[in-house]
Amino acid sequence: MKKHNFSAGPSILPKEVLNQASKAVLNFNKKDLSLIEISHRSKDFVEVMEKAQRLVKELLNLPMGYSVLFLQGGASTQFLMSSLNLLKTNGSAAYINTGTWSEKAIKEAEKFGKVTILGSSKDRNFSYIPKKLNCPKEMNYLHFTSNNTIFGTQFHDFPKVHSNTLLVCDMSSDIFSRKFDASKFDLIYAGAQKNMGPAGTTLVIVKNEVLQKTGRDIPSMLDYSIHIKKDSMFNTPPVFPVYVSMLTLEWLQNNGGIEWIEEINKQKASILYNEIDENPLFQGVASKEDRSKMNVTFILTDKSKEKEFDLAWNHAGINGLKGHRSVGGYRASIYNALPLSSVKVLVDVMHNL
Amino acid sequence: MKKHNFSAGPSILPKEVLNQASKAVLNFNKKDLSLIEISHRSKDFVEVMEKAQRLVKELLNLPMGYSVLFLQGGASTQFLMSSLNLLKTNGSAAYINTGTWSEKAIKEAEKFGKVTILGSSKDRNFSYIPKKLNCPKEMNYLHFTSNNTIFGTQFHDFPKVHSNTLLVCDMSSDIFSRKFDASKFDLIYAGAQKNMGPAGTTLVIVKNEVLQKTGRDIPSMLDYSIHIKKDSMFNTPPVFPVYVSMLTLEWLQNNGGIEWIEEINKQKASILYNEIDENPLFQGVASKEDRSKMNVTFILTDKSKEKEFDLAWNHAGINGLKGHRSVGGYRASIYNALPLSSVKVLVDVMHNL
Repeated sequence: MKKHNFSAGPSILPKEVLNQASKAVLNFNKKDLSLIEISHRSKDFVEVMEKAQRLVKELLNLPMGYSVLFLQGGASTQFLMSSLNLLKTNGSAAYINTGTWSEKAIKEAEKFGKVTILGSSKDRNFSYIPKKLNCPKEMNYLHFTSNNTIFGTQFHDFPKVHSNTLLVCDMSSDIFSRKFDASKFDLIYAGAQKNMGPAGTTLVIVKNEVLQKTGRDIPSMLDYSIHIKKDSMFNTPPVFPVYVSMLTLEWLQNNGGIEWIEEINKQKASILYNEIDENPLFQGVASKEDRSKMNVTFILTDKSKEKEFDLAWNHAGINGLKGHRSVGGYRASIYNALPLSSVKVLVDVMHNL
Repeated sequence: MKKHNFSAGPSILPKEVLNQASKAVLNFNKKDLSLIEISHRSKDFVEVMEKAQRLVKELLNLPMGYSVLFLQGGASTQFLMSSLNLLKTNGSAAYINTGTWSEKAIKEAEKFGKVTILGSSKDRNFSYIPKKLNCPKEMNYLHFTSNNTIFGTQFHDFPKVHSNTLLVCDMSSDIFSRKFDASKFDLIYAGAQKNMGPAGTTLVIVKNEVLQKTGRDIPSMLDYSIHIKKDSMFNTPPVFPVYVSMLTLEWLQNNGGIEWIEEINKQKASILYNEIDENPLFQGVASKEDRSKMNVTFILTDKSKEKEFDLAWNHAGINGLKGHRSVGGYRASIYNALPLSSVKVLVDVMHNL
């Protein structure tokens, strides 16, 4: 029996995708070769890369002038690449601090220039999203993390910037989960291992015209312009992670795209938060208006019920429900590939406690 | 029928490894979860990472004081990480230029300090290995590429350095193919996709005591010390590529380790070079004494036979024999996982031309 996988990342992938990926490891495109032993410059793999890039453009309805890259190194590498490529020498950048990932991004940016913390929810252990922020005109860019996987908060309205300030977003944990206007952004990046695929590749979406304006001599592997020029093939790309991401994006498109998944994601979040709010045994962690539709964080109000609850969800075939070590409690990650039926199983367990 | 896969990289992997990897994508360790949808901090994956590191240490007989890392970004990222971590501010580094990969490494190092080209084989299109080089004492390190995949040359004796100069080697295309004294090296790196696994992870072996001596403020993801402290889990590692690398290293160890494979690699190279030397229709590209036992480069002496030869090896089920676009001719990559029987098929085709 397949588990109900609520892991925070690496996380659940569609069953069809896993089946096809498993087959490709043995024999890809009926070529009598494994996907992972063919040249990345072969026609078969170049088609995978191009299709993955095309699917991103179509799903997000990207306007002309944006490049789509599949790189390595996770969002952690993007923390420094985003600064290196967009922060001018002697420039300033603004950051919104909504927890661990923002803090890590800030730490890397500080190595390259002046960083202003425009807003922070550190005062209440990152349980809310700072709002009504005014980003000064002189900022090269404003960086924020659209969804915080650890505390379970999410931006439902995106911050605004002046026309000469770039908008940069780490969307690792909620990209492809809801409609949004991508044309408002200059740089979006996302580690694949939540809504897009397995660990090992990072999606980068960048507006071409904002690059090469910092005056820095950037190492080749950290330079978006070089990856764009080489179409994500400057060096050997992570073949398997890119392929599985392509399959997952294809699954999303074939089923109805973002509109389709957004509706399901709303339903999943709705029934789960409903149970949390109506069941006196549970309490949500994040402020109601900033609750994430991807990571639902909650605690037991009656600690003595912990053993019983843990046994019950384990027994129901649920996996990955423990909260992050820095928050405790529980976290149900309900990414795109997690079916509504799995959430119903969890809600039943909570209801019957 | 499985092809005879002579691809230069990504390249052939053992059949047993592909079978097990394919199964793990569906159900890993009988946990009813896919390998690629479990947490990288789960016991199951932590064991994979630790086993992969242990296998590297055992296979290379690494002394105490070395760390083994599985990172992302390929050798291309190591070109800059090696300089950032070992080249002192205002320091100098020596490089041996044996072709494309050395040249790329040199280009990145030049962004961080003074680079001296100690030797180069550019004068004869990188068809040989520069020898009898004297590395000046004041060099922070000497960097060389042990095997050139494109031109088919290989260091059979490693360069020597003074005791205060570190020895750094890009072993992407011949690590685990032959015995060598790892204790002579301070840093070894290798992209997985030749002798170790699929594309998407990079092996780094570094002597702990040489780190944190440059005076640089290194971005976290580029700092070996941080990855060592976090045991290759500073950020989400590339789960699938690391797992398949572990399986491949396990395959090597279970079959008899480096001693076993070195003997087979010698046989494969020997019968292939023998055919090249005895058959007047073929000619080797690299100087005889510097010939690679991993990438055998050759040309047809009679161009008019090209079509016939290409048809014949294609018909025999051979894949990936075309030379690199910058050299032309043919290149038979005969990495660890390529069986002797595949080389015999190629030799037969050449013999019967």
